[in-house]
Amino acid sequence: MNLKSVLKIIKPSKKEEREMDNFIEKLIETSGKLSKDMKPIICGSVEKDTWLAKKYELDLFLLFSPNITKKQLEEKGLKLAKDIIKILKGRYQIAFAEHPYLRGWVGKFQVDIVPCYKIKHPENIKSAVDRTPHHVRFVKKNLKKPDEVRLLKHFCIANKCYGADVKTLGFSGYLCELLIIKYGSFMDCVKNVSKWRAGHVITFGNEDKERLTKKFKTPLIVIDPVDKNRNVAAAVSVEKFYTFVKACKDFIENPKKEFFFKKPLKPYSIAEISKKIKKRGTRWYLIAFKRPKVIEDILYPQMKRFCKIVGKTVMQNGFEVLRNDFYCNKKCVLILEMKEWQIPKVSKNIGPDVFSKHAEEFLKHYKKEKVFIEGEKWVVELEKEFTEVSQFLKNLFKKPKNELLEGGIPSKIAPLIKNCKIGDGDGAIELMKKLPKEFRIFLREYFEKDLNVV
Amino acid sequence: MNLKSVLKIIKPSKKEEREMDNFIEKLIETSGKLSKDMKPIICGSVEKDTWLAKKYELDLFLLFSPNITKKQLEEKGLKLAKDIIKILKGRYQIAFAEHPYLRGWVGKFQVDIVPCYKIKHPENIKSAVDRTPHHVRFVKKNLKKPDEVRLLKHFCIANKCYGADVKTLGFSGYLCELLIIKYGSFMDCVKNVSKWRAGHVITFGNEDKERLTKKFKTPLIVIDPVDKNRNVAAAVSVEKFYTFVKACKDFIENPKKEFFFKKPLKPYSIAEISKKIKKRGTRWYLIAFKRPKVIEDILYPQMKRFCKIVGKTVMQNGFEVLRNDFYCNKKCVLILEMKEWQIPKVSKNIGPDVFSKHAEEFLKHYKKEKVFIEGEKWVVELEKEFTEVSQFLKNLFKKPKNELLEGGIPSKIAPLIKNCKIGDGDGAIELMKKLPKEFRIFLREYFEKDLNVV
Repeated sequence: MNLKSVLKIIKPSKKEEREMDNFIEKLIETSGKLSKDMKPIICGSVEKDTWLAKKYELDLFLLFSPNITKKQLEEKGLKLAKDIIKILKGRYQIAFAEHPYLRGWVGKFQVDIVPCYKIKHPENIKSAVDRTPHHVRFVKKNLKKPDEVRLLKHFCIANKCYGADVKTLGFSGYLCELLIIKYGSFMDCVKNVSKWRAGHVITFGNEDKERLTKKFKTPLIVIDPVDKNRNVAAAVSVEKFYTFVKACKDFIENPKKEFFFKKPLKPYSIAEISKKIKKRGTRWYLIAFKRPKVIEDILYPQMKRFCKIVGKTVMQNGFEVLRNDFYCNKKCVLILEMKEWQIPKVSKNIGPDVFSKHAEEFLKHYKKEKVFIEGEKWVVELEKEFTEVSQFLKNLFKKPKNELLEGGIPSKIAPLIKNCKIGDGDGAIELMKKLPKEFRIFLREYFEKDLNVV
Repeated sequence: MNLKSVLKIIKPSKKEEREMDNFIEKLIETSGKLSKDMKPIICGSVEKDTWLAKKYELDLFLLFSPNITKKQLEEKGLKLAKDIIKILKGRYQIAFAEHPYLRGWVGKFQVDIVPCYKIKHPENIKSAVDRTPHHVRFVKKNLKKPDEVRLLKHFCIANKCYGADVKTLGFSGYLCELLIIKYGSFMDCVKNVSKWRAGHVITFGNEDKERLTKKFKTPLIVIDPVDKNRNVAAAVSVEKFYTFVKACKDFIENPKKEFFFKKPLKPYSIAEISKKIKKRGTRWYLIAFKRPKVIEDILYPQMKRFCKIVGKTVMQNGFEVLRNDFYCNKKCVLILEMKEWQIPKVSKNIGPDVFSKHAEEFLKHYKKEKVFIEGEKWVVELEKEFTEVSQFLKNLFKKPKNELLEGGIPSKIAPLIKNCKIGDGDGAIELMKKLPKEFRIFLREYFEKDLNVV
């Protein structure tokens, strides 16, 4: 296949580049006029020449002297940022990372204005943002073929593993740049990645890889060339790691342009879903509730925790979960795919070995119950409070907020969950009908997921 | 309570003793007349004065010189035994333990005639039977109050833990005698036993108990005073051990004559069973087949193994067994009390950690399946061949005999199992109706079992 034809589509046109250059010139000029206390520089993919067509996004870093306090830096920086956007007749909002920064929109451009300290050596930085100018410098110095990064970034986007945000937990732009610096070209990168396994280590010096594996317990370890103590791939989840490896492997085996421009997945029809569930013979529960009004960076970790805690609680009551997962859009939806609708009233609790020193505690604890012996273990049969999954879930979700919080239900979800709708069996199908088609795309991914990289 | 009133019932009357003495006299006389090559002696509870009323059972040991071969011993011994019974006008059959012996019936008396070697020191014995005369000698020398043994034996009988046979796995007569020698009286024995816990050690010398615990891994260790390498309580199962402890504890807390003369348990009615099962909410399977024509010593271990292997096989297919047990009478009946009738078609197989070196084998093994990641584990979903318990059991039992044997189904059961009847749910209840009332007594024990000794 011809990668040039891909580049033709994803690389900014001459016109786009000119527009970007003009906007940058205006930004720097405006900043310089407003203040002599700092040095304005452009960071991000634009500066590194790795930005993608139609992505009019850039970062303006305001480099202040390390002699001023953090408070002064924030105040001066934000004031200056606001003034810049005002002069350029844009709109803005304050955003927060480790420190506040400003996100502004001017025409079709989105610019993040970030105040930071100008630090000569990256090992002396005062906060993470101070590191960014050093990243830019390293990439500019070492990246020979920026177009190869564009290919890799777009490949990641198409295969749903681009972005280090908490929703994606994938590969950042800087990480893509480092991979191209490491492997030289898109094709060589993909060839190498297709053979990666969890725990892969990449360094730009001669660090001891075994030591690094012990230090960073992540699927991918990429030591930041500007800071040896930092793993650039820290955010990459195991799932996204193998999603990337699998995409690379599939691409190597059958290189096609489609890997860059994936058609959106066709949503399952309700009939297809019903058929699929029937074939699996599993018992479906959907729990739908209003989406909390928080940004994705807060929502996704909370939904993940919620999903995990509900699965665990249900299991502890003796209901066996086959899979559980969640989906967020305007509604949040938790899925419990269960082995059963119902379990017996009686459940068996296998205690310690009759020869164990813990046997006595067990017997004391169940003094009021009938106990007996199976093999060489003490056993007690207990009565379950709940024998039906729906009944158990309803009881769980109607609990007062403080109890939910104590039980580990995340803070933004706890107040909304009592108004949830629980659909089981046909009820789950009915609920699905009311959800947008994205949910049915999500279900296709749920059913057809395959990460076998062998 | 008055133990004397118990003794009045369980101790042989003067008349019984006279009858027994007369019979013994005849036995010894007849033996002596028939052969001068051996010395006839009486062993067993009769000789030790610990026999129970109406138990006209005794052992006649024929002590031969150790100079003859085992073959000669068997031939001479059995011939002599047969002749004795013939002269006394009784009937007999050959029985087998470590060596053949003869069981004869003369009038109301049952006599086991056992040929053995006369060995001066028990450490030089040639087979287990040679040890018996030494046991008798030890008990006669050390047992001060034989009536206390009678109480203990009867107590064990009433509480279903008397007998070292493979069906009972309980306390032998000799073991009861040793316990009384150890503790002095029935009451002191019971008081002590009520505090026993699994791993209890009793010695008649000053052996190192810790070493013995490691050597004999049984719930009760009683070192034979005539052979330090032998555990007299080797046969006692954990269940019978605690049955005995519990009976002693209950007796101490509330001493009543009923502990010696338990009314037979009232069988459950079919209605009671149905109610009980409904309340437990469990799924019942009864597997009934013809009793193999073998003695209990062979039948019970085989049924136990059969029960275990079926439980395990069913579990391995994903069906969860809550309890399984068996009952034997004219029919053999296996019980499977299950958590479910049915499981989903799809089942989850959790593989190795993604960071494990076994991950690659897993991926290769499931190359043709879709795999994905949960937490940090590789996971594959597989299709079950059987989703219904009955369907699975039917398929299992219709297999050819050789496959059953290879699968661990015991030899005497394998040929009969293909003609079994499987009853589930109401079908199980229907099957129960055809079984004798003893099965419904067995079910009372099944449901009401309680061994809490705290």
